[in-house]
Amino acid sequence: MSLRERVSVFLERPEVRYGIIGVILFNAAILGLETSATAMAAAGPLLVVLDSLCLAVFVVELAAKLYARRLSFFRDGWNIFDFAIVAVALVPAGQGFAVLRVLRILRVLRVISVTPRLRRVVEGFISALPGMGSVFLLMGIVFYAASVMATKLFGASFPDWFGTLGRSGYSLFQIMTLESWSMGIVRPVMDVYPLAWTFFVPFILVTTFAVMNLVVGLIVNSMQEAHDEEEIARTDSYRDEVLVRLAQIEAKLDQAQDSRERMDRVG
Amino acid sequence: MSLRERVSVFLERPEVRYGIIGVILFNAAILGLETSATAMAAAGPLLVVLDSLCLAVFVVELAAKLYARRLSFFRDGWNIFDFAIVAVALVPAGQGFAVLRVLRILRVLRVISVTPRLRRVVEGFISALPGMGSVFLLMGIVFYAASVMATKLFGASFPDWFGTLGRSGYSLFQIMTLESWSMGIVRPVMDVYPLAWTFFVPFILVTTFAVMNLVVGLIVNSMQEAHDEEEIARTDSYRDEVLVRLAQIEAKLDQAQDSRERMDRVG
Amino acid sequence: MSLRERVSVFLERPEVRYGIIGVILFNAAILGLETSATAMAAAGPLLVVLDSLCLAVFVVELAAKLYARRLSFFRDGWNIFDFAIVAVALVPAGQGFAVLRVLRILRVLRVISVTPRLRRVVEGFISALPGMGSVFLLMGIVFYAASVMATKLFGASFPDWFGTLGRSGYSLFQIMTLESWSMGIVRPVMDVYPLAWTFFVPFILVTTFAVMNLVVGLIVNSMQEAHDEEEIARTDSYRDEVLVRLAQIEAKLDQAQDSRERMDRVG
Amino acid sequence: MSLRERVSVFLERPEVRYGIIGVILFNAAILGLETSATAMAAAGPLLVVLDSLCLAVFVVELAAKLYARRLSFFRDGWNIFDFAIVAVALVPAGQGFAVLRVLRILRVLRVISVTPRLRRVVEGFISALPGMGSVFLLMGIVFYAASVMATKLFGASFPDWFGTLGRSGYSLFQIMTLESWSMGIVRPVMDVYPLAWTFFVPFILVTTFAVMNLVVGLIVNSMQEAHDEEEIARTDSYRDEVLVRLAQIEAKLDQAQDSRERMDRVG
Repeated sequence: MSLRERVSVFLERPEVRYGIIGVILFNAAILGLETSATAMAAAGPLLVVLDSLCLAVFVVELAAKLYARRLSFFRDGWNIFDFAIVAVALVPAGQGFAVLRVLRILRVLRVISVTPRLRRVVEGFISALPGMGSVFLLMGIVFYAASVMATKLFGASFPDWFGTLGRSGYSLFQIMTLESWSMGIVRPVMDVYPLAWTFFVPFILVTTFAVMNLVVGLIVNSMQEAHDEEEIARTDSYRDEVLVRLAQIEAKLDQAQDSRERMDRVG
Repeated sequence: MSLRERVSVFLERPEVRYGIIGVILFNAAILGLETSATAMAAAGPLLVVLDSLCLAVFVVELAAKLYARRLSFFRDGWNIFDFAIVAVALVPAGQGFAVLRVLRILRVLRVISVTPRLRRVVEGFISALPGMGSVFLLMGIVFYAASVMATKLFGASFPDWFGTLGRSGYSLFQIMTLESWSMGIVRPVMDVYPLAWTFFVPFILVTTFAVMNLVVGLIVNSMQEAHDEEEIARTDSYRDEVLVRLAQIEAKLDQAQDSRERMDRVG
Repeated sequence: MSLRERVSVFLERPEVRYGIIGVILFNAAILGLETSATAMAAAGPLLVVLDSLCLAVFVVELAAKLYARRLSFFRDGWNIFDFAIVAVALVPAGQGFAVLRVLRILRVLRVISVTPRLRRVVEGFISALPGMGSVFLLMGIVFYAASVMATKLFGASFPDWFGTLGRSGYSLFQIMTLESWSMGIVRPVMDVYPLAWTFFVPFILVTTFAVMNLVVGLIVNSMQEAHDEEEIARTDSYRDEVLVRLAQIEAKLDQAQDSRERMDRVG
Repeated sequence: MSLRERVSVFLERPEVRYGIIGVILFNAAILGLETSATAMAAAGPLLVVLDSLCLAVFVVELAAKLYARRLSFFRDGWNIFDFAIVAVALVPAGQGFAVLRVLRILRVLRVISVTPRLRRVVEGFISALPGMGSVFLLMGIVFYAASVMATKLFGASFPDWFGTLGRSGYSLFQIMTLESWSMGIVRPVMDVYPLAWTFFVPFILVTTFAVMNLVVGLIVNSMQEAHDEEEIARTDSYRDEVLVRLAQIEAKLDQAQDSRERMDRVG
């Protein structure tokens, strides 16, 4: 067995996998403690060191995996996910990149990529997305058109909410979630433009209806996937049996007919 | 091939269709840029010219389509949709019609009418509406009755919210979406009319229940449409086969019986 | 034909039914106009007279129906509904009963009882309620227990929200609808009782989950009702045919066997 | 019959069960009255005595049940539930335990454990939880990671909302329920960190999508449980009958063939 294979086998051993899960959870706890001022005051340097150690474990693990699988490593989306999460932590967090330090907590998401059951749930979520692509595209078009309209109509009087395309898009997203849409946004706008409701109420109806259709599509999809499987298999085997037996009966009848005809001829 | 047919064939060519989609998206980007003060300052006249060019393309396209299909052009709802959207842009936007300029962005919705997949999604949405007609009618009746009641009960003390039928309708729509219904509307009203909750809480329960039933209806409908198709086809072909085979077996038995009876008579 | 029967037949005639619908809609418009100060100033007395005329029509119609059906009139829930709505308008609206005048608009709901299609939708809604009885009862118990707890825990500091059982119930209903639950209620409460979230967050989770289960129950119910019917009928007739044919085949085989045995014996 | 058995039989008698339900409801009413200042002023001591009497009945009932069933008493989750609820009331409510007095109202939940129908509904709810375990775990991970990030990013400027992990978790829960997420939280945050929406909008999309999937899972589950049962039983019995009959036909054909062969040999 080559070194590559031995590394590969080693990485697959359950105790290694559980060890990695342990390090991930330990790292998550460390990163959680780092948010506490008292914990940082009491043991700040220790926490930083422990965090670096966890990172080191991840780097070694991924390097080993990369060594074992070579370029096929990047064929699995989850490996790319792990790689990106760990790589983020290695970028030197200079000025303007302080946010990268915050992204380190995303390492806790590695629990998902390491646990098959969670992986499957996330894969299930992602597999539902393409089926909703058309509706998303449709909502994107509606949002773009509504943002342009809102910016032109209300941007001058309400620059904070509708001053630019981006602000309008954000405000319309808020309105779609129904958060303070009336008391917070539409009533003040209606004080200036009394007919503003003719824009916002249809927008709410259309987007809510589209979201409702997304949910319905999701339900119908899951239903069809879940539906039957077993039931269908049982039905199929039953049908096969019935058809086989009918064929046998026909064959026997034909045979009986043959022998009778032979007898007739003989007789 | 007459000119009419050649125009018709030309319009159906994929490169023409993709060209139109390109113009729609380019036009959408132009209209988006027009909302930006800096873009308008830098290249305002250019943007206006480009927008007019896009409009010209649409006018030519629709004129060609209208020429090719004549009055049957108006038999397709999507053509009427395209026609209305383009016609809006041609109305001279004088005073009082400034809002028409804003409607030009609706041209981006032509992406839907040009893309078969998006068309089908929208058609699916629209086909779901008639089935919900009764519930909509019911909600309309409930809204009308509730608006009249709210206006009479609370209009005097809260003219902004319930001063007229229209304002009451808007406020009740807001309450139905549960936006600030209590802290924003009902609690202030209850400070004046302590029993106001006996009106609003049942209203919320009834309308929420009606909306819930709309969603349920939508789900059941989609389900029945999606359900089976394939499965049903397979079941049908299986059933036909079973019945045919049973008929054959019976026929063979009858034949055997006949020959046996003949033998008996002969014997 | 007795007078009773003739009255009964007359009431069932379509033109009478459409006439009644017309009067209901006309009355609804009148009552809507009464909410407008300008309409009342311009034609107040006329509106009141027209409203009384509509009421007179309803009284005559119901009296005729009552005469035609006698006590069996009260066996139909919709008749009781019509009767109650019309009776409300006849109660003299003295002091303290001013609210009764407002209930006159409920007459517009008679559109439902007169239109078979809307009746069926409402009957569908009502038929869904008993199946949700247990969940409603459960939510009632949870609401009662939570109201008592909230009153005892927070009533002293927040008398407006949790001062009495009734106020707590209303506030908890608001929280269940998620309206301003945090910024409006729980955050202020947490300023006084920092652990208040241990009461409210579980309450939200439990009630939301219960509501979710109501919706799920509703969907499953509608599904089972809608499901099949036709499909089931087709399956049943197919199954019957298969079993009949199998029985015939068996009978023919038995007959053949009999005749063969007879031949053996004869032979 | 031993004393144990007689106690056990006595507890199962319907009149005893209905008596206990009566005491529970009476106790609930007493505890409700205790929240009213006027009721306490008028009959405070009486209410306290009646409450103690109810408690005494529960203690005796549970002691009898414990005597009758011995340790198997604790095998039923509902018995543990009853035991805990009654035990809470017996803990002396000293300082710092004043909240325990409030928990006495939880006794009204005993209505659930005593009523089989409500028990089944609650058991149905609980049985749905394990299937949602993975999604809950996933949401827990997302909440933890998002809380750490929010605390690090916004904690310094918004200590009330994101000062500690706990506060961030609570604020994110509020945002997930869409309560005042934009006007209340994200817009103020965006005044300081203009890009804050890049954190909150994806958080809302992800958690809403996860909750949607929970609901979908719940629906699919209930559907599969409810689906068929009867229908499946009917299908199974039909299939069995068809297969039995086919087997009989084959057997008869074999027999006929045998007799024919015998005849051939004889003949």
